[in-house]
Amino acid sequence: MDKISDIVPVILCGGSGTRLWPVSRRDYPKQFTDLIGHRSLFQETLLRLQMCFSQKPIVITLESMKFLASHQINEIGVSAEIIAEPMARNSGPAVLLAAFQTLARGKNLGTAVFASDHVIRGSEAFLKAIHQAVPAAKKGHIVTFGIKPDCASPAYGYISAGHLIAETQAHYVSVFAEKPNIETAQHYLNQGYVWNSGNFVFMPDTLITEYNEYDSDTVAAVRDAFDHAQIDLDMVIPAKTYSHAESLSIDYAVMEKTDKSAVVTADFFWSDAGTWQSLYQLAKKDDKGNALMGETFLQDSTNCYVHNKTNMVVGMIGMHNTTIAVTEDAILITPTAQADNVQYLLNDLKDAGKSEAISPKKVFRPWGNYETIALGGRYQVKRITIYPSGILSLQKHFHRAEHWVIVCGTAEVTCDGKISLLTENQSVYIPTGSVHRLHNIGKINLELIEVQSGSYLGEDDIVRLEDAYHRV
Amino acid sequence: MDKISDIVPVILCGGSGTRLWPVSRRDYPKQFTDLIGHRSLFQETLLRLQMCFSQKPIVITLESMKFLASHQINEIGVSAEIIAEPMARNSGPAVLLAAFQTLARGKNLGTAVFASDHVIRGSEAFLKAIHQAVPAAKKGHIVTFGIKPDCASPAYGYISAGHLIAETQAHYVSVFAEKPNIETAQHYLNQGYVWNSGNFVFMPDTLITEYNEYDSDTVAAVRDAFDHAQIDLDMVIPAKTYSHAESLSIDYAVMEKTDKSAVVTADFFWSDAGTWQSLYQLAKKDDKGNALMGETFLQDSTNCYVHNKTNMVVGMIGMHNTTIAVTEDAILITPTAQADNVQYLLNDLKDAGKSEAISPKKVFRPWGNYETIALGGRYQVKRITIYPSGILSLQKHFHRAEHWVIVCGTAEVTCDGKISLLTENQSVYIPTGSVHRLHNIGKINLELIEVQSGSYLGEDDIVRLEDAYHRV
Repeated sequence: MDKISDIVPVILCGGSGTRLWPVSRRDYPKQFTDLIGHRSLFQETLLRLQMCFSQKPIVITLESMKFLASHQINEIGVSAEIIAEPMARNSGPAVLLAAFQTLARGKNLGTAVFASDHVIRGSEAFLKAIHQAVPAAKKGHIVTFGIKPDCASPAYGYISAGHLIAETQAHYVSVFAEKPNIETAQHYLNQGYVWNSGNFVFMPDTLITEYNEYDSDTVAAVRDAFDHAQIDLDMVIPAKTYSHAESLSIDYAVMEKTDKSAVVTADFFWSDAGTWQSLYQLAKKDDKGNALMGETFLQDSTNCYVHNKTNMVVGMIGMHNTTIAVTEDAILITPTAQADNVQYLLNDLKDAGKSEAISPKKVFRPWGNYETIALGGRYQVKRITIYPSGILSLQKHFHRAEHWVIVCGTAEVTCDGKISLLTENQSVYIPTGSVHRLHNIGKINLELIEVQSGSYLGEDDIVRLEDAYHRV
Repeated sequence: MDKISDIVPVILCGGSGTRLWPVSRRDYPKQFTDLIGHRSLFQETLLRLQMCFSQKPIVITLESMKFLASHQINEIGVSAEIIAEPMARNSGPAVLLAAFQTLARGKNLGTAVFASDHVIRGSEAFLKAIHQAVPAAKKGHIVTFGIKPDCASPAYGYISAGHLIAETQAHYVSVFAEKPNIETAQHYLNQGYVWNSGNFVFMPDTLITEYNEYDSDTVAAVRDAFDHAQIDLDMVIPAKTYSHAESLSIDYAVMEKTDKSAVVTADFFWSDAGTWQSLYQLAKKDDKGNALMGETFLQDSTNCYVHNKTNMVVGMIGMHNTTIAVTEDAILITPTAQADNVQYLLNDLKDAGKSEAISPKKVFRPWGNYETIALGGRYQVKRITIYPSGILSLQKHFHRAEHWVIVCGTAEVTCDGKISLLTENQSVYIPTGSVHRLHNIGKINLELIEVQSGSYLGEDDIVRLEDAYHRV
């Protein structure tokens, strides 16, 4: 089947996926993690869209995640346009941004909006479904993809398909229902309703007109923010007036109200991978129903899910129907059926001021990432990774000296005006107060071990004098 | 109450405590861990005996644990004699060693043998019980301490006390029973039996004569090994002929057979702290029956035990009657009632060649300890602690260079004959092939970060040229 040339694919990736704590966190949410397989769900989505569309994709993310998104895009060698929302406003305003950006790209182009954190299998069926949606979109419909349910899940929205729209393979939507309770879900299942996968194809004018019908203030706010957007490091940053947009999902803002909606029944495998329970359902199980990752050893245990990408050994005895999720700094243990309550646990962690609620152990920066691997009374050891061309700010510290040992790649080190080149197995000492900078001038990741020594080791002991990422 | 002057206290600490994996491991067993409180059970035992006895204690341990024992003894500033068995032979031969060493120390001295890994509370009652045991021991009895049971546990041996021994506060033993099944345990409880705490007071001649009655070969083997013992770094190392001793517990070897046994009913709190279940019983619980350690957050959970001395956050939802034990490199999850099956899990780990089954992440050496905090393709980072006066072997590596950054204390570094003094925030580079040595010449622990760089980073890439601990 041919690639689609007149539809602009858009990926929404500003979500925070807190129901998958401890793997997914506000500062490194689900779509960017290697939750399933080696690539992130965001990267899988990008690659899938690259196979289906010839137009360059638009990635709509939050400003706080823009470097994460940009790095993951580069990592798989694709090209995309990034719009970084200055603040989170849910999916409604983000879909409006997608529509405005499509209009800006050219006349007669349509928009296809996809979540960045869903699992979709069957790329032929996926492409076929989009091809089926396009004619209805061009006739002025907002077309969504309906998935045949395999159970009465209260976790998804439901759609009842009506008559076929003339000259298309899409149906009118007779009911568009938000997440039901379990009894209603069963009723929907019996009535042949399909799940709303939360992906849409439309012509920008249709979407904007419909949105305007129900919430013209939000459309005006998004239009204004878009018109006054800044371009920073090749990314589009809508103006702060974006905050005047009502924070609503596209389902609530438009889909539940409009009579322009349409549905194509899709044949691909789909999961929103939104909860530990859905991940357990997705996972391959052994003959005892256990889905195990990492170094896991079981005695007398059944139907357990162990998500463990660390080096920790997990041993379980006599456990059943239980999910264990292990990261470098946190462990979740719960009956799988109760895993949804992780949000309450997360609130407790936040109330206690635990950073593990919102930040992962590995901290991501525009130039790369670092993690603390040892912390003592007057020292801290970090493992630092700098992407090719990555460059830290020109900076100094008042309370700590640093020893850097290069363990991989090549570094250009600036220290008090002196520039030197260091490679694997070389080291340098950065005295307290000296003005220094680290730059990966090589073609591979630069890795170094930093040993900090001093009486105060907080991240805020930093004076940035110059910064390639405009953080000064 | 006065200290006891004519009885030599002996601590047996060669056990491996595998039922408390992942905290207790062959290379760092239970008695040396800070399982409860800040000091180890071994240290608590030493301090308790120091309060009760004026004779210097004898510590009987395995050769593989002798430096661990010696470090922990030094750490709390007590003085003790160490006998390091060349191989494990269970408690029978160890008690014989205790008897021979007591005889060697002087005439008319008695022996009191204590486990190193029990929890005992109530030091006055403890001292009183020993005072009560001594007269019977001097009359030729082997006196044990009976604990009033608070449940019908199948985990302990039972003793039925008979008549009082004349002029003493000890009783004859009418039944000495090994661990029973649960029904028999209930019967014992009803009959007023007491638990055998596995601690003994006797005159050496009595013990040796009785042992000789049932197994003269073992007595001869232990006597020979003791007579031909070497003194190495102030420790007594029995000769290798110790291997000819039958590996049997003192209960099986002597106590179940002899008519010289006696029992003093003790009033102190006692637990063998042998299983996760017993640790949960020992622990302070909240109003939901949860006993929590470390950063633990619960939702809707009751009667759980979380043993966590790491920095990991543990989150639990909807869990009940479950034990979670977390270490730096392993996690155990099990209904507390099934925690005893950890031995089967451990066998699986051993079969899979997992080092986590037998060694802790922190590796103990005579001079201190180290742990790997980061491992990459061509590098390894270790945090190394060297005790005051600790000195590593004079050594060289063929495949790796090392960067050392001192983060605490003062080091004397030898590198290819050149000696230098390094302190906090100083570093040194040890090139591949250079002959080097590290020595803590200070009064506090020396801590350093070692970054190894090279194509092969195995522990076996070491040529030891000289070693203060006789490991060359």
